Amino acid sequence: MSNVTTYLSECRNLVLDEMTRMVPSRERAGSNLYELVFSYPLRDAKALRPALCIATCMALAGARDAVLPSATVLELYHNAFLIHDDIEDQSELRRRGPTLHREHGAAIALNVGDAMLALTLSPLLENTRFMGLGRALRVLQVISRMARESAEGQAIELAWIRSGRFDQSDSEYLRMVHKKTGHYSFLAPVLIGGIAAGASESALLLLARFATLLGTAFQIQDDVLNLDVAPELHGKDAMGDLWEGKHTLILLHALRSANRVDFERARHVLGKRRPGTGIEPGRDDALRNRLRELEALGRIAPDVVRELEQAGDASRESPRSADDVDFLMRLIRRHDSIPRARRMAERRARRARRVLARLRPTLGPSAHFDFLEALGDFVTARDH
Amino acid sequence: MSNVTTYLSECRNLVLDEMTRMVPSRERAGSNLYELVFSYPLRDAKALRPALCIATCMALAGARDAVLPSATVLELYHNAFLIHDDIEDQSELRRRGPTLHREHGAAIALNVGDAMLALTLSPLLENTRFMGLGRALRVLQVISRMARESAEGQAIELAWIRSGRFDQSDSEYLRMVHKKTGHYSFLAPVLIGGIAAGASESALLLLARFATLLGTAFQIQDDVLNLDVAPELHGKDAMGDLWEGKHTLILLHALRSANRVDFERARHVLGKRRPGTGIEPGRDDALRNRLRELEALGRIAPDVVRELEQAGDASRESPRSADDVDFLMRLIRRHDSIPRARRMAERRARRARRVLARLRPTLGPSAHFDFLEALGDFVTARDH
Repeated sequence: MSNVTTYLSECRNLVLDEMTRMVPSRERAGSNLYELVFSYPLRDAKALRPALCIATCMALAGARDAVLPSATVLELYHNAFLIHDDIEDQSELRRRGPTLHREHGAAIALNVGDAMLALTLSPLLENTRFMGLGRALRVLQVISRMARESAEGQAIELAWIRSGRFDQSDSEYLRMVHKKTGHYSFLAPVLIGGIAAGASESALLLLARFATLLGTAFQIQDDVLNLDVAPELHGKDAMGDLWEGKHTLILLHALRSANRVDFERARHVLGKRRPGTGIEPGRDDALRNRLRELEALGRIAPDVVRELEQAGDASRESPRSADDVDFLMRLIRRHDSIPRARRMAERRARRARRVLARLRPTLGPSAHFDFLEALGDFVTARDH
Repeated sequence: MSNVTTYLSECRNLVLDEMTRMVPSRERAGSNLYELVFSYPLRDAKALRPALCIATCMALAGARDAVLPSATVLELYHNAFLIHDDIEDQSELRRRGPTLHREHGAAIALNVGDAMLALTLSPLLENTRFMGLGRALRVLQVISRMARESAEGQAIELAWIRSGRFDQSDSEYLRMVHKKTGHYSFLAPVLIGGIAAGASESALLLLARFATLLGTAFQIQDDVLNLDVAPELHGKDAMGDLWEGKHTLILLHALRSANRVDFERARHVLGKRRPGTGIEPGRDDALRNRLRELEALGRIAPDVVRELEQAGDASRESPRSADDVDFLMRLIRRHDSIPRARRMAERRARRARRVLARLRPTLGPSAHFDFLEALGDFVTARDH
């Protein structure tokens, strides 16, 4: 376990150095844009994606320098996605600090994400010098697919939120998170590492299978940790997934298992807005006071006043409460949805290890292979 | 003039067809993501960027099919930037319709923009088949630079807004708009057209100079039109730049020319927020909507509605008023800032034509060259 964290932290240092070389200077930008690019990467991040990419390449006897720029590009993508996701989800916290849009406003944060996406192209073009033209073009194809899958996955989740539906099956959920997160967090890093090392097609197929299994294990475990860990370890909002009303494997299972009465109540609770995301309390008070004054002066009919007040109340309708979140949590506990999810994650992590084992004979032993192998345990045993 | 619009509309049809081929199906996405990609392109857009790209390529005797995918990618970039800009600026209208985030919420709109950016990479990689490897890589380099410049320009403008400073010089303004808009709207289209046609380095240099001059002419004229044209022609908010408190060449000149008293008043006015922006994008104010409905039904008097709305606004600090905008407009008129900007645009358009004329001997006559030549007039004579 400590080997995994050591390996991660070594990769993280390499990637932060490379990122510093990659990102233009403040003078170049004429604003603080490129300082803000480092805001999330410098927080307490694992840098799992670049580590996966580097380890795969080196386990296949590829050169570290050949893959480091691509690994760093993956970290840029990841952090750009986080910034945009945080705006989309109206999240407050990220890696134990305020989200970028809370600190600098949505406009600046959105643009920082766009700048990070823009910065990824140049190093990928320079890859022709480090890994040859054919491999560089293949890496670009993987990146192209990855960016598309991620946007598609995000669109599916946003459509679920908008529809208010909570009847998705396990496999619909797993498809969504594979597209939204698994693709860029696991599949692309491993494929790019393999391509940089010149892996055979059959090795790439096994690596892809390994990454997909590991990715779903990781994502399910993420949902488990959100409900099952102290917030100071997780770095996000405590039980944020329930406050947010997020579609998770765990919640979907509990809803599927619930009786009719509980299901209807859960749906009602999930239909409420998250606290802090509606019209803030007190905001329309001046308007309401004036409404009463005009009514007293006879300039506006009492029934109209009532109607307007109701519209106003509906607009802020009460947000999800601690009781609501408790109710959802009890439902989840009653149906053992957390242990079930944990088992599903563990099963996938074990299968990932078995797939990886098939590569062992061709690869031979290395610290990099050990890291990939240990990741299966790390993913399901990690506490944040 | 009518030749220019005909050429533009022919290019637009080609590009929309190509875009339809480029964007995956609904089934592929599993959501309505790819329908929303077409939302802005199908509105009343000029498709100036792809037309510039196609005309440059064909004036240099390049093949249309060699450049069409890249031209379409430029239109995808443009529309993705518009979607993100509209969120950042909290704009209400775009091309005579509601902005995407007003229609679908900021989360979905932001992700649609990201999806469009993601979709650009694959056609650029396929360019190797249409224009050969060397040219395809150069096009990718132009795109990489362009995306970076645009984010840098946007960051500069956002920093100006945040600082509350309005003392930027003409050249600071021109640098900002060249980075933010000129690069992707003029320079990159012309360079990509030239590269696709195999232009010499000296021709590319002249083309770049032409595009930069034309681009600043266009941008200055955009600011002129915003203050000097009927809103139904412009398709954006009427005098939106002043309501928004945007840094334009015109406003900056008027402020620079104003006496101390006027300057201080203008700064105070510009320090206010824009009406309607107290509420974050995508957040619905049901009470206000109901107020409008009741007014439309005649159940509540218009002056009462106005009074209530003002009370609501006052609760979140008073926004810029029509009087404020009038004051800024009077200041602009007093210092002849609009005719001055118009002259600056015309001067640049003339210089652009002179630069282009130097390419005439090597290129020979064509409808494509004529289009490029006529653009100089079009840019400064257009009414929207």
